Amino acid sequence: MSPDRIYAKYWVESAFPLQKAVEVMAGEQSSGTFIKVPGETEELKNRHAARVESLTELEPVAVPSLPGARVPKGTAVPVYHRGEAVLSWPLSNMGASLQNLMATVAGNLFELQQFSGLRLLDMKLPQPFRDKYPGPQFGVAGTRLLTGVQTIPLVGTIIKPSVGLSPEATAGMVGQLAEGGIDFIKDDELQADGPHCPFEDRVVAVMRVINDHADRTGKKVMFAFNLSGDIDEMRRRHDFVLAHGGTCVMVSVNGVGLTGVVELRRHSQLPIHGHRNGWGLFSRSPYIGMSFLAYQKFWRLAGVDHIHVNGLRNKFCEPDDSVMASARECLSPMFEGEGRGCEIMPVFSSGQWAGMAIDTYKAIQSTDLIFACGGGIVAHPAGIGAGVRSIQQAWKAALAGQSLDEAAAQHSELRQAIQTFEYR
Amino acid sequence: MSPDRIYAKYWVESAFPLQKAVEVMAGEQSSGTFIKVPGETEELKNRHAARVESLTELEPVAVPSLPGARVPKGTAVPVYHRGEAVLSWPLSNMGASLQNLMATVAGNLFELQQFSGLRLLDMKLPQPFRDKYPGPQFGVAGTRLLTGVQTIPLVGTIIKPSVGLSPEATAGMVGQLAEGGIDFIKDDELQADGPHCPFEDRVVAVMRVINDHADRTGKKVMFAFNLSGDIDEMRRRHDFVLAHGGTCVMVSVNGVGLTGVVELRRHSQLPIHGHRNGWGLFSRSPYIGMSFLAYQKFWRLAGVDHIHVNGLRNKFCEPDDSVMASARECLSPMFEGEGRGCEIMPVFSSGQWAGMAIDTYKAIQSTDLIFACGGGIVAHPAGIGAGVRSIQQAWKAALAGQSLDEAAAQHSELRQAIQTFEYR
Repeated sequence: MSPDRIYAKYWVESAFPLQKAVEVMAGEQSSGTFIKVPGETEELKNRHAARVESLTELEPVAVPSLPGARVPKGTAVPVYHRGEAVLSWPLSNMGASLQNLMATVAGNLFELQQFSGLRLLDMKLPQPFRDKYPGPQFGVAGTRLLTGVQTIPLVGTIIKPSVGLSPEATAGMVGQLAEGGIDFIKDDELQADGPHCPFEDRVVAVMRVINDHADRTGKKVMFAFNLSGDIDEMRRRHDFVLAHGGTCVMVSVNGVGLTGVVELRRHSQLPIHGHRNGWGLFSRSPYIGMSFLAYQKFWRLAGVDHIHVNGLRNKFCEPDDSVMASARECLSPMFEGEGRGCEIMPVFSSGQWAGMAIDTYKAIQSTDLIFACGGGIVAHPAGIGAGVRSIQQAWKAALAGQSLDEAAAQHSELRQAIQTFEYR
Repeated sequence: MSPDRIYAKYWVESAFPLQKAVEVMAGEQSSGTFIKVPGETEELKNRHAARVESLTELEPVAVPSLPGARVPKGTAVPVYHRGEAVLSWPLSNMGASLQNLMATVAGNLFELQQFSGLRLLDMKLPQPFRDKYPGPQFGVAGTRLLTGVQTIPLVGTIIKPSVGLSPEATAGMVGQLAEGGIDFIKDDELQADGPHCPFEDRVVAVMRVINDHADRTGKKVMFAFNLSGDIDEMRRRHDFVLAHGGTCVMVSVNGVGLTGVVELRRHSQLPIHGHRNGWGLFSRSPYIGMSFLAYQKFWRLAGVDHIHVNGLRNKFCEPDDSVMASARECLSPMFEGEGRGCEIMPVFSSGQWAGMAIDTYKAIQSTDLIFACGGGIVAHPAGIGAGVRSIQQAWKAALAGQSLDEAAAQHSELRQAIQTFEYR
C-alpha cells in the first residue's frame, strides 16, 4: 500500500482475456483513451496511469450477465471470464475530493463494452481524504451521550403510516412511544416537508411532546427529522430543530448527494441520520453497481453519524451475511492505523423484533447500533412499553450470554413477544 | 392527468400476480407498510396512498432476472410476469422537492422481495416542480449566443490525455484547437483540481489563450472547466472562471448530487455542462435502475444546460436508438403545455466524426447539440482545422439534405475524413 494512492477492488466479467480487459479499464479511467494520443508520453503515463495491482480469476461462465458487451473478433463460442481486480490511482490525479473520487472509481467504467459485468467491491483511501473531510461529528459515542443509552443498542422505531399524518397526529404517536420508553424515533423517508405535514409544524408539535417528557422523566428521546432538500432548506431546518431542542436530523443521502451532505455536515451541530433509500439501485444486481463496503465509505467521510444496514431476516431481499458485513464495516476503522474516530452507528430495521437480538449480537459482537422495530414494538400485545422492554430484555440477555429461552423464562414481555412474533 | 399528482412509469418483473405486486409497491412507497397500522385510516389512504393508474402485461419469463425475489407460497414452478405499470402520488405527500421525489419514485422500492426486476422508465411532474426549480439558465439559445454558432451544432472536443497534462500543456492544446476553429472544449471528468493541474492555474493558462484568440479573431471558444467539488469550492471556482472571462463550467452530476447542482445553478452566471459519468450504474442492467428519460428530468430541473447522451455507433455499449431517444428528450418540453424554456443541449460524444452527422440529423431533426469528437478532429490527416471543417461540412450537408457522398465530392476535408475514419 502506497500512502499516496487510491485502491479500488472490482468484480469483473469479460469475454476478453481478463488482464487485457482490466488494463483497458485502468487506461480509460486515467491517462489513456480509445486511441493513443500525442500527449500521452511515457513520463505522463508513469506519473498518472492507473495500475492493475492484482487480478484473481474466478470460475468463467458461458452466458454474459449483462447485454451490450463485445466479444473478441473472430470468437466463435465466447467464454466470459470472471475475476476480482485491484486497481490503483495516484492521489495526484484527482486530489482528496469525494466527488472526483466517484468520477474515477465509479465513473464511465460501467459502460465499457469490454465488460458484461462490473461491480465496485471496496476501496482504500489515503490519509489526505481523512484530513480534508470531517467524517462523523457524533458517531457512536456522541449518539450514546445524547440519548443516555450506554450498554445496549438504542431501541428505535419509525413513524407509520409513512406519510399522511398531521403534525399533531405525529406528535400523538411520539407521546405514546416516549411513554413506552423508546430511545429513538425517525421520520419515514417519504415524510419530508409536504403541505399536509410541514416540517416546521412537525418539529414544533413533536418537540413539545419530547421536551415535556424529558422535563418529567429526565429522558430525552432522539427524533431524526427528515430535512432532505436544497442547501438553504436543510440549513434552515437544521437550525429550527436545534432551536426547538431536537437532537438529530435525517437526510436521504442518494437524493441529496455528496456535496449536499458534506455541506450539511459542515453546518450541523446535531447527529446526521443517513438514510440510504434507493440503495437497491446500486446493489440489487450482482453484476453491476457497488458494494455497501465501498458505498458507506463515501457517506462516512461526508459526515453521516448513522446509516441504514437492513436487519437479520429482513423483509427486503438482502441476505443475512451481507447485512452483518455491512454493520461490521460501519464499526471498523476506515484508514490504516486509525483508532476509533470514523465509526458510525449501523441502523438495523425491517421486520426486526426482540427475537433477532441474540443472533445479531453473536454476528457482530457489538451493541453500538440502533435497533429499529415497527410491529415488534407497536404490535406487542401488552402495549408499546412492553414491546420496548422485550427488546431491551433480549439485548441484555445477549450481553449476558443467555439464550432466548433462558431470558424468556425471566421476562414476561419477552415471552409474549416470542409468542406473538415468532411464527408470524 | 391530474395537475396535482406525480406519475411514474416502471418496468417490473414478479412471480406474484402483477396487479398485486404493483399494489404492494404503491403501498410501500406511500401510506402502507408490511402490516396494517392503526393510523392508516380510510380517509388517510384516500388522500395519500399511491395509485396504480395502469398496468400492461408483457411476455412472462421462466427465470428471474435478478436474485433475491420471493415466489408466492406453495408455487412449484414459478412464472415471472413482466409488465409496465404507471403509479401516481399526490404532490402533497412530498411537496415539490427533487430530493424527496427521488426518495418516492426511486427509493426503497428496488429492494422489494416481490420483484425480480424493477426499472423507472419515465415520470411526469406537475407544474409546482417547474415553479420551484429554475431549470436551465442558458439552454440551447444561451449556449448558441455565447459561442456565436447559430445553425449547425457546436463542434467540440475533450482535452486528452484525460489527466496528467500541466496547466501550460492544456493551454497549449487549447491554442491549437482554437486555431483550428473549434467552438467548444471540455475538461475530461477525471480532471478536476489535482495537484498536478490545479483548477485555478488551469483557468488562468487556458483563458489567456482563449481571450487572446478572441481578441484576434472575434471568436470566443467555450471551455467547460470541471469544478465538481464541495459547495464552497464550486462557488469559488465558478467565480474564478467568470472573472477570467470563461463562459462555461462543468459538473459531474452523480458525484455532486442534486442538492449541490441546484445550489450551483442558483449561484451560477454561466452555462452548466452536466457530465453523467457513472450513468452506466443506473442504466447498464435492463432489470434494475432508471431510464435516461427519467434521469435527465432530475438534472434539467436542477439546472444543467448541457448533458451527455453518447453518440451514434459509440464505443460504449449503448445502442443507437437509445442514444437518439435520449437526445430527443433533452430537446422536448418537460411540462404539459410548456413551450420552449426547459430544453437542454444534448452532448454527443464517443467515437464521433464527420461521418455520423447526416445520420444523427436524420434521427433527431435538430442541430441544437454539441458534437464532441476526439480522434475525429485531432487525427484528421490535414490537421485539427481540417478535422473541425470536415465536421462543419458534414452538418451543413445534413441541413441541405445532401448525402455524405455528395458533400464529400465538394469538400476535400470531408473526403479525407471519410478515407481516414470510415473503415477504422
